Amino acid sequence: MSAANFADRLVDACASKGGPVCVGLDPRWEDLPSAIRRSHGEDLEGRAAAFLEFNRAVLGIVAPLAPVVKPNVAFFEALGAPGYRCWLDTVAAAREAGLLVIGDVKRGDLGSTAEAYAQAHFDVAGCDALTLHPYLGLDSLEPFLRRCREGGRGVFLLVKTSNPGSADLQDLEVGNLRVFEEVALLVRGWAAGPGLAGRSGWSSVGAVTGATHPAEVALLRRMLPGVPFLVPGYGAQGGTAADCAGAFDAAGRGAVVNSSRGILFAWRKGPLAERHGEARWERAVEEATLEMRAALAAALPRGA
Amino acid sequence: MSAANFADRLVDACASKGGPVCVGLDPRWEDLPSAIRRSHGEDLEGRAAAFLEFNRAVLGIVAPLAPVVKPNVAFFEALGAPGYRCWLDTVAAAREAGLLVIGDVKRGDLGSTAEAYAQAHFDVAGCDALTLHPYLGLDSLEPFLRRCREGGRGVFLLVKTSNPGSADLQDLEVGNLRVFEEVALLVRGWAAGPGLAGRSGWSSVGAVTGATHPAEVALLRRMLPGVPFLVPGYGAQGGTAADCAGAFDAAGRGAVVNSSRGILFAWRKGPLAERHGEARWERAVEEATLEMRAALAAALPRGA
Repeated sequence: MSAANFADRLVDACASKGGPVCVGLDPRWEDLPSAIRRSHGEDLEGRAAAFLEFNRAVLGIVAPLAPVVKPNVAFFEALGAPGYRCWLDTVAAAREAGLLVIGDVKRGDLGSTAEAYAQAHFDVAGCDALTLHPYLGLDSLEPFLRRCREGGRGVFLLVKTSNPGSADLQDLEVGNLRVFEEVALLVRGWAAGPGLAGRSGWSSVGAVTGATHPAEVALLRRMLPGVPFLVPGYGAQGGTAADCAGAFDAAGRGAVVNSSRGILFAWRKGPLAERHGEARWERAVEEATLEMRAALAAALPRGA
Repeated sequence: MSAANFADRLVDACASKGGPVCVGLDPRWEDLPSAIRRSHGEDLEGRAAAFLEFNRAVLGIVAPLAPVVKPNVAFFEALGAPGYRCWLDTVAAAREAGLLVIGDVKRGDLGSTAEAYAQAHFDVAGCDALTLHPYLGLDSLEPFLRRCREGGRGVFLLVKTSNPGSADLQDLEVGNLRVFEEVALLVRGWAAGPGLAGRSGWSSVGAVTGATHPAEVALLRRMLPGVPFLVPGYGAQGGTAADCAGAFDAAGRGAVVNSSRGILFAWRKGPLAERHGEARWERAVEEATLEMRAALAAALPRGA
């Protein structure tokens, strides 16, 4: 018996929450509200407890407004064993709040090691979807794809990332195509495999394509019909709603757009910081989420 | 003040331990000696305690015989928070035993996330070197390279992996070169950056190239003088000492060869299993390490 297809769940969640906003849960000790920092020790244990308090507060604010959160495990691993415990607790708290969870783990390994990572982040942590490196090829993805087919999970494969250094390898010209376009062709084939498409028509195999490269986002949308996109780089990294519009199909579907710092730390700088400041940081987080939802709604195709 | 260069430490350790054997610490519950399994519970906590007991026993056996161990964090993450604690304890135990530790983490992310991963696995876990994905380019490596230059750490970038699926992307023909050769050219430039070469002449930026592709190993050695190789795929995956010989320079330097299952679980099948069996599993682990060291010594260039 198989669980509901991930892509279908993503489409439904975007519709019910009023837009494709993904909130990146990337906590940093230095940036936490000082009231939270003061109530915990500065050692790894204390910082991890502060992360969890902050994450839970953020989840409570964004759960009615956004379909998906994307915690990045790196920030948790940086706090050692207490941090890893906090990773698991944060994923669980997000699911309890009714949010889909894209675990931003960017794993990529082979054989039984890939199986171990799938156990770690699907079976034990309980993420709904994961980001993965495609460099090791299809057999390295198979343990994850099995859980997409049988367990209602999803994956987002790195195609074109949002950082400047993405040009080093991803943009290399190789005949008529660049490396990331070759990767996109592989992803297209893998995403069309049996048992991956939902009733919505979208595959549970998606692609990561950064908002900081809008021309490439639009190109990839044309190359990859039916492949959902995770679009990072909105906000603090410079991507705008208009930059993301090309990620969507004519019905305004097929992508989620992630903002991390621009939402979590909206109270630290910019207009929302001036209006609310640290004392009302929750209000700034809420307004930043609403503003992003509105900006995307204005920039996106209207749909059916 | 900077710590001793990683490549120099690796060259010295290979010389003092009599060869370039890297023992892969990839514990699996099903494969542990039953005496160890019986003394722990089957829940995640119990399995993690069993992993640590097994790892410590293996480290005690191989520390006099091998310069390096390579634990793969995936097997630890698969046991949730107790597993992650065991990861940190295993790295610490290996360093206490006088072994260099290559943390096989295969991370690859950007900006502050890359910094967080470097904190997690260099600063907190204490690994001497890490395996990394190069797909996101040079800026994604910078937090790790800073610790190579200033902290005596090393990295091994994935170039050509040992699995069959490595052909999907890595072997794509792009003009006159394949994708992994393009990656190798990038690695060559990055490895030649300031502050990375040791007095041995080797860089603290290395490459991963699987023993299962001996022609590619030899090609990459010619392309990448001064870049140390981590060669997985020996033993259980099918690579032989002869397959690895091309990874070394004329002096028999410049690579370490990894075996995981072939050493850890030598007592489960094959000639050493017949000779020793589970009751003397430690003896089988020791002999498998000695056999691999001897096989490499016989296959390698003699050196100066």
